[in-house]
Amino acid sequence: MSVSEVGEFGLIERLARLVETRPAPRSAPQPVGLDLGIGDDAAAWRTTPDLLQLATTDTLVDQVHFDLATTGWRDLGWKALAVNVSDIAAMGGSPRYALVTLGLGRSQPAADIEELYRGVQEHCQAYGLAVVGGDIVRSATTFISVTVVGEGSEPLLRRSTGVPGYRLAVTGWLGNSAGGLRVLRQLKEQRRKEPRSAAERTLVATHRRPQPRVQEGLALAERGVTCGMDVSDGLLGDTTRLCEASGLGARLYLEALPVHPALQEVFPNECRQIALIGGEDYELLCAIAPDQVEAVQRGLERATGTRLAVVGELDGPPVHGRRVRVLDASGAEVEPSGWSWEHFS
Amino acid sequence: MSVSEVGEFGLIERLARLVETRPAPRSAPQPVGLDLGIGDDAAAWRTTPDLLQLATTDTLVDQVHFDLATTGWRDLGWKALAVNVSDIAAMGGSPRYALVTLGLGRSQPAADIEELYRGVQEHCQAYGLAVVGGDIVRSATTFISVTVVGEGSEPLLRRSTGVPGYRLAVTGWLGNSAGGLRVLRQLKEQRRKEPRSAAERTLVATHRRPQPRVQEGLALAERGVTCGMDVSDGLLGDTTRLCEASGLGARLYLEALPVHPALQEVFPNECRQIALIGGEDYELLCAIAPDQVEAVQRGLERATGTRLAVVGELDGPPVHGRRVRVLDASGAEVEPSGWSWEHFS
Repeated sequence: MSVSEVGEFGLIERLARLVETRPAPRSAPQPVGLDLGIGDDAAAWRTTPDLLQLATTDTLVDQVHFDLATTGWRDLGWKALAVNVSDIAAMGGSPRYALVTLGLGRSQPAADIEELYRGVQEHCQAYGLAVVGGDIVRSATTFISVTVVGEGSEPLLRRSTGVPGYRLAVTGWLGNSAGGLRVLRQLKEQRRKEPRSAAERTLVATHRRPQPRVQEGLALAERGVTCGMDVSDGLLGDTTRLCEASGLGARLYLEALPVHPALQEVFPNECRQIALIGGEDYELLCAIAPDQVEAVQRGLERATGTRLAVVGELDGPPVHGRRVRVLDASGAEVEPSGWSWEHFS
Repeated sequence: MSVSEVGEFGLIERLARLVETRPAPRSAPQPVGLDLGIGDDAAAWRTTPDLLQLATTDTLVDQVHFDLATTGWRDLGWKALAVNVSDIAAMGGSPRYALVTLGLGRSQPAADIEELYRGVQEHCQAYGLAVVGGDIVRSATTFISVTVVGEGSEPLLRRSTGVPGYRLAVTGWLGNSAGGLRVLRQLKEQRRKEPRSAAERTLVATHRRPQPRVQEGLALAERGVTCGMDVSDGLLGDTTRLCEASGLGARLYLEALPVHPALQEVFPNECRQIALIGGEDYELLCAIAPDQVEAVQRGLERATGTRLAVVGELDGPPVHGRRVRVLDASGAEVEPSGWSWEHFS
């Protein structure tokens, strides 16, 4: 069976089992203080009773995760950091240190790499972390692999702590990044350089410079929210992942998705679909007890200026049918015309 | 200027300057407790007054760092972990957690990847660390990128703390891994499957399953050694790096290099040259005050069974000529016929 037949998540599951089920020989010292291994946005271990270290890694590959025809080197550097910082935000932690590995061809102009590094540095300065190491390797395929270590304290935001009846809520707006990518592809096809409108510019900017929700993750955790993750592969796909980790099902309300006026203006017919399945939002998705929703919404907006939209509800485990059902305004189940993006599929 | 013209280390230097020299805006929180950034084997930061976290990352790329014709998937998994664990050992720390990223083609058999992961897991069990996360991405070029986080305490082994007159010493044997690679290439050319002798098998085994010197790093640090690094790119190249970090020069004594009988048997004419410049030894190189050498040697051998060979001496900064001079038994300077291996060059 090939990697593409097993699929990324299938393969990760098989490998995670391989790591977890083999007993260690008695002679080997065991890692102490590990709170959370494979399966959440970041791993977590304890260095003092109160302090957790969080670690995550994400890699962007040319022609798979980015296209230098639509992404500049500097924005690529920003994004490679942002996708990792978002995983730390998704735990309710603070990013601290980054290790950056570049895979490059021999003939790559060094100026491009410096430009990429400027984007890395801009992101690090904006989010208060430091690049402390990395590696540069020769590779026929260009890639950038980043590990970010952060700090946090319990209770973290986890994927596995959902409760039936809890409301699903997301920060900010959904679909702007995917909309921005569509605009960039149209520009490329039409050999135009610049977006045509302020709305297009808004979408493109979101795609190029995603803003991970670090302050929001901290604010949610401080307000007692314990279940959450970031929305990187699209709301529908990531809600499915949260439900799998919690052993639950869920409903999503298509009409409730926070669609930005710019997305509505540029893609009036498809904006909800894009908000539902478009990836790279880097917003936070969380589950909140019904009687806490309003207080959390108010508190988050006061602390960070960011709105929190209720987009659905957790159910018990699905007996039959889909794990996550999408309902329209009339309560009828919608058949999504595409699922969220997964590598290898 | 292209990446290959600047060179890996030149590029890293330029990027490190970019990271360090740009002042952070006042609004961004600053990483606290960073003890050591880019430039040593691992980064280090403090989570309590006594406890340091150490982090390092290293990536192996198909056809650059490995060749699946001479390296099996399982050995590749072992090695990808070992090169990182060695960087933690080089600081005098203990490896704890690993994040493993795989870049794979769509058609890669999943069984190969599971085999690779078995090698990862074998190394983790032998060295007492846990895989806590990672990423799997599609890539036309196969690669494996690993980050290892470890723990340690001051004084760490650093590259920058060399003192003129201190003796340079290395653990174990030099050149066996490079010798093993030569044997494997000969086997491939001659379409043979198996090494012809016990000596060849010894070299091949060292190449396939390097054993990072974690216990030795701890033992050196406990015995007051504060200057050291691992030998991954060859003794000559890595001594140069240690000298650069310490702002010093050095002499290496060709006759003093610890050459294993197996290397001498298989490559009788070139064994010293291989020991001097062959890479992937993953031994430790350290600098020790002259009056401490014997005590450290005795203590290390008692604690770990590993011998420590004096191979040279640190000098003041070179006024002219090479930073590191290699001397033969008569004290004459030898012209090394090749320098240590560097990507892109």
